[in-house]
Amino acid sequence: MLGTVLHAPGDVRCEHVPEPEILQPTDAIIRLAASCICGSDLWPYRGLNDITAPMHMGHEYCGVVVEVGAAVTTVRPGQFVVGSFCLSDNTCPHCRHGFQSSCDQREFMSGAQAVFARVPLADGTLVATRDMPADDLIPGLLAASDVLGTGWYAADAARVQPGSSVVVVGDGAVGLMGVLAAKQMGAARIIAMSRHKTRQDLALHYGATDIVAERGEAGIARVRELTARIGADAVLECVGTQDSMTQALRVARPGAMIGYVGVPHGVEFDGQQLFFSQVGMLGGPAPVRRFLPHLMDLVLSRRIDPGLVFDLELPLTDVAEGYRAMDERRAIKTLLRV
Amino acid sequence: MLGTVLHAPGDVRCEHVPEPEILQPTDAIIRLAASCICGSDLWPYRGLNDITAPMHMGHEYCGVVVEVGAAVTTVRPGQFVVGSFCLSDNTCPHCRHGFQSSCDQREFMSGAQAVFARVPLADGTLVATRDMPADDLIPGLLAASDVLGTGWYAADAARVQPGSSVVVVGDGAVGLMGVLAAKQMGAARIIAMSRHKTRQDLALHYGATDIVAERGEAGIARVRELTARIGADAVLECVGTQDSMTQALRVARPGAMIGYVGVPHGVEFDGQQLFFSQVGMLGGPAPVRRFLPHLMDLVLSRRIDPGLVFDLELPLTDVAEGYRAMDERRAIKTLLRV
Repeated sequence: MLGTVLHAPGDVRCEHVPEPEILQPTDAIIRLAASCICGSDLWPYRGLNDITAPMHMGHEYCGVVVEVGAAVTTVRPGQFVVGSFCLSDNTCPHCRHGFQSSCDQREFMSGAQAVFARVPLADGTLVATRDMPADDLIPGLLAASDVLGTGWYAADAARVQPGSSVVVVGDGAVGLMGVLAAKQMGAARIIAMSRHKTRQDLALHYGATDIVAERGEAGIARVRELTARIGADAVLECVGTQDSMTQALRVARPGAMIGYVGVPHGVEFDGQQLFFSQVGMLGGPAPVRRFLPHLMDLVLSRRIDPGLVFDLELPLTDVAEGYRAMDERRAIKTLLRV
Repeated sequence: MLGTVLHAPGDVRCEHVPEPEILQPTDAIIRLAASCICGSDLWPYRGLNDITAPMHMGHEYCGVVVEVGAAVTTVRPGQFVVGSFCLSDNTCPHCRHGFQSSCDQREFMSGAQAVFARVPLADGTLVATRDMPADDLIPGLLAASDVLGTGWYAADAARVQPGSSVVVVGDGAVGLMGVLAAKQMGAARIIAMSRHKTRQDLALHYGATDIVAERGEAGIARVRELTARIGADAVLECVGTQDSMTQALRVARPGAMIGYVGVPHGVEFDGQQLFFSQVGMLGGPAPVRRFLPHLMDLVLSRRIDPGLVFDLELPLTDVAEGYRAMDERRAIKTLLRV
């Protein structure tokens, strides 16, 4: 079958790879309805993470089950399923607390930029739809697998409440989904920090009330102005750099929470500074599985349309162009038709 | 009048100082019913904070109002009052959000280890009792001014819920008050980390269900054993060193909150480590004013007895011995009768 392999920084190829097989009785094999490229796929692509062996790329997925292992009981061949990028048993204590992304058996999905994919821990990871979804809903369901669930977790961790003032740092796909999540949770004010027209427009479409194009000190000053010099009740940090984290900390009011979902790269916190800022923090890989049934329901009932973050659609064979377009910021997020 | 002045590390004296006067129309002058020495007073005493000029010590206080400025409307001479160590207007947006310790007009109290003290921002800071409290309730009311309110905030910030499993790191007065707070909030399991018999006994009296005397790796292992290898739902960090913070992080389950109230000294966090631990954090100087009416009510109705943390009582004239006893850990906390 065709699959995506990253051989070296900048060298990503769609090539023939072995079809996945059931390796554990808890596995399922799915035929992808679509796949996509994640902002985090760009780290190894850009050489920011080491590549020690050819990597089978792709961790966002939805599609039809074609085979299940002997122990799988909750999904069966022929069903349409969405799963989280974090594989979880959904029964361990961490899962029961709603932190499936710290599951005792956690694995990260891989190899989903392909025609078929193996999903370990299928019972704990996959959620089936009742019917076969309409084709135009596929992008939204695919978004639920990671980027929507991650933006949602950022808003949940930041404890967005009805009436909250919210700042979203980062205008990538996750940040835009954070805007959508904050809106769904009833935020009164949603300030999106973005310098790019297309992303600003999408942020406004998803419910942003204000756009701040400035960065650094100017950006902080602008947000403080917009929040009557108080700072925001909740901040969603969706980048993961020291600059973006500083921005998040400086626009949060004392007692606010920062939900941070951008994997920190080179970020350090000074304990005493954090203490006197009196800003709370909760982050980590998103426990998408916790939110998945609700998010799928919102998509299937057409109450939200997260699929709009895919502003480039390519056949799987053109995956290299998909990476290039995202790397050069010509595309927010690339959907791959398989 | 007599007051306490720190002249240099280790050199603290009870000496004649000028009586405080109303300087602002929002000030009140109180006659102290009692005062006490705080763990944080030991930092400059030990030379860990710079002393650039003689310091008038003491920020925990309760007593009778003797004079108020022209703008003060909520307390009047003759009333018994308790106030927070953080002075606040209790009207600014941060105060209204319950974070009076980040008040726009915040000042820190000083000069309360004395016969009289000036309390700025009296309306926003002081809470009066209905009647003159019985003498044996004075220690408990005094504790509410800082150490009880701080332990309470740690439990609140850590989001202790009915049924929670809680770890308290630190067996100083604040840690012991954290145990009391967790108990009041309905925690099912309260693990106190303490190596000192007297403090262990008091922790058990206040509601600790388990004592862990081990520290470092052994202490972490023991807590994990006690929490079925899951980690605690809530952790109260009441020390402020890198070791204690590491301990707190390592005993918290994913999704847990750490309420940290020990002012961090030399503490740094690695962003990526914090991210993957998926542990939340909220700290800072305690907004005692938020909790004060409730805490005073609990003390006055004798439902809690936080005054037991004072295991040494001295006249103000012996303040130097009070500092020595705490410095040498012969006393948990010293009450000064004025």
